[in-house]
Amino acid sequence: MTAPFPTPKTEDAQRLLGPDEIEAALRDIGARRYHNLHPFHRLLHDGKLNKDQVRAWALNRYYYQAMIPVKDAAVLARMEDASLRRVWRQRIVDHDGDAPGDGGIERWLKLAEGVGFERAYVESTQGILSATRFSVDAYVHFVKERSLLEAIASSLTEMFSPTIISERVAGMLKNYDFITKDTLAYFDKRLTQAPRDAEFAIDYVKQHATTPELQRKAMAALTFKCNVLWTQLDALYFAYVAPGMIPPDAWTPGTGLVPEVTQAAGTGTIGATDVPRLPRGVRLRHDEVRGQHVLLAPERTFDLDGNAVAVLSLVDGTRTVRDIAGVLAETYAADRAVIEVDVLAMLNDLATKRVLER
Amino acid sequence: MTAPFPTPKTEDAQRLLGPDEIEAALRDIGARRYHNLHPFHRLLHDGKLNKDQVRAWALNRYYYQAMIPVKDAAVLARMEDASLRRVWRQRIVDHDGDAPGDGGIERWLKLAEGVGFERAYVESTQGILSATRFSVDAYVHFVKERSLLEAIASSLTEMFSPTIISERVAGMLKNYDFITKDTLAYFDKRLTQAPRDAEFAIDYVKQHATTPELQRKAMAALTFKCNVLWTQLDALYFAYVAPGMIPPDAWTPGTGLVPEVTQAAGTGTIGATDVPRLPRGVRLRHDEVRGQHVLLAPERTFDLDGNAVAVLSLVDGTRTVRDIAGVLAETYAADRAVIEVDVLAMLNDLATKRVLER
Repeated sequence: MTAPFPTPKTEDAQRLLGPDEIEAALRDIGARRYHNLHPFHRLLHDGKLNKDQVRAWALNRYYYQAMIPVKDAAVLARMEDASLRRVWRQRIVDHDGDAPGDGGIERWLKLAEGVGFERAYVESTQGILSATRFSVDAYVHFVKERSLLEAIASSLTEMFSPTIISERVAGMLKNYDFITKDTLAYFDKRLTQAPRDAEFAIDYVKQHATTPELQRKAMAALTFKCNVLWTQLDALYFAYVAPGMIPPDAWTPGTGLVPEVTQAAGTGTIGATDVPRLPRGVRLRHDEVRGQHVLLAPERTFDLDGNAVAVLSLVDGTRTVRDIAGVLAETYAADRAVIEVDVLAMLNDLATKRVLER
Repeated sequence: MTAPFPTPKTEDAQRLLGPDEIEAALRDIGARRYHNLHPFHRLLHDGKLNKDQVRAWALNRYYYQAMIPVKDAAVLARMEDASLRRVWRQRIVDHDGDAPGDGGIERWLKLAEGVGFERAYVESTQGILSATRFSVDAYVHFVKERSLLEAIASSLTEMFSPTIISERVAGMLKNYDFITKDTLAYFDKRLTQAPRDAEFAIDYVKQHATTPELQRKAMAALTFKCNVLWTQLDALYFAYVAPGMIPPDAWTPGTGLVPEVTQAAGTGTIGATDVPRLPRGVRLRHDEVRGQHVLLAPERTFDLDGNAVAVLSLVDGTRTVRDIAGVLAETYAADRAVIEVDVLAMLNDLATKRVLER
């Protein structure tokens, strides 16, 4: 038992790796760091997420998809060699398509619509997590600020994507009744595009990472990109799985959906025996400066007249519409049935605008 | 009950606010969005975090502190007016000091050392969360890419910082026995610096946000900055509070601490009756390419000889050192007591390198 103390492989880190070794080293980063290993993806693929959690994923991931051609254009702008640009520009074509209604971004919008979103809401990106925005923007800035070698190496997560796509498509089709083959059309195309793109990028890295230092930079770039993907799932998990702390202004279930889906979520017509309540994020408030009661909703504010204030002050999540009408009838010495009709009309108006639900 | 349906205040959003109104609107953003409202800060100030969670906060927040003068230099570089630059440059002086050992960054390092970190580990930023890096970098990019008005408006979170600092210093001194007044010296200075900086910035915004659109941009810039602070706490909460999912390569308790503290954490000398185990993030692995067993630790790899592999294969978190020596004695038909001495020496060597703990 005379074990020489193991020492860090500093010499090995200085050594120039051969083409197969550098590829193996890059694949090893993927094997340990690619986001198929993230708990959120395991829940997604195993059918363990509810529909709203899948929606949160589709909504946030849209921003990543939408920025990919911006990222690729930034890489393209750094290539001084036409033969490189001819190859790389295909990525932009793939994502943007040849006409409206075509391309990868469009297919992702179809996916988002497939899970119930209004297209315009998704395109606005107003409901995405700040962490999504910061992570994706970090990727765009990275390819602008680092060397071309690092920019290209950071795209190498595509080496690993065919595996995750197969898992995902099979898992999601099997486990979610609201997911169809058509909804997931985005991934069909990627199954052929990603390996082609990855092959070019790995060849470029093998050819241009000609010193140990450049090889380390290429590996660090791929690690960085794995982190860009990983942090997005961390943020989704935090906001929508556990502890479920949705940051201010981020999407909350029920928002941005096409009307049918909103109704299915229980926010449709309010009846006299329903208990109305303010949805999460909506608050009754007095604007001191203007001496005015307002209903504060994410991105919107509604001025309220005295009648609306009287009704909304009684909306406490326990009273039914009938209870509310009863209190008002007593206060104003009026007919409860007459008041009830007015209250119902007003509350349903608010429900249509999604600042009230039952 | 004839309630006219409340309509969004689109006209109001178009209206130019007076100086007091714009200040009130900006303060209102802080009242709703500043990170003193974040659950992580409430835990921090109320003494509900353990020492490692406070360490994670100090370590990550260092990156924010270290980048503030970089951010301010980027703002300075956009000011074409010497009278503005004369004022703004003071921020850089405050953070960098006049000599080594002086300034806000230095005081934050003292705070990090005060909770047990090795200075060099903190300065390396190798253990910070990617989400911290992406959020802080988003701030630096924001001031480079947006208008000077937006860059200055994004600094306005300083309007709200005196409150949080008072809460924090009082709460932390009261609740944590490992925190001293000296450790928190950073905040003493900020109590006078922040209001002075905020006053200049709010005056600038009042003077230069001369249209409703510019006023909205200033408000959006402050909201953005609140998000930069908020996402950092989301990520800390996720990794170190709940669900406690530390991302790959981020700091794990026990790492980067000065030796005394490491011992206090129970990773000191291993005795024969101790149960050794691999710390979180350290794994025994066979490198197929090189036909070599290695011990994989964050940022480091150790080659292992046959003896080390034999011992580490038996480290399972349940066997004591004596048990391990017993198994080996039987396998190699040798004296258990002799083997035990060798095993102890080897394991304590590994513990010194922090790839083993008890």
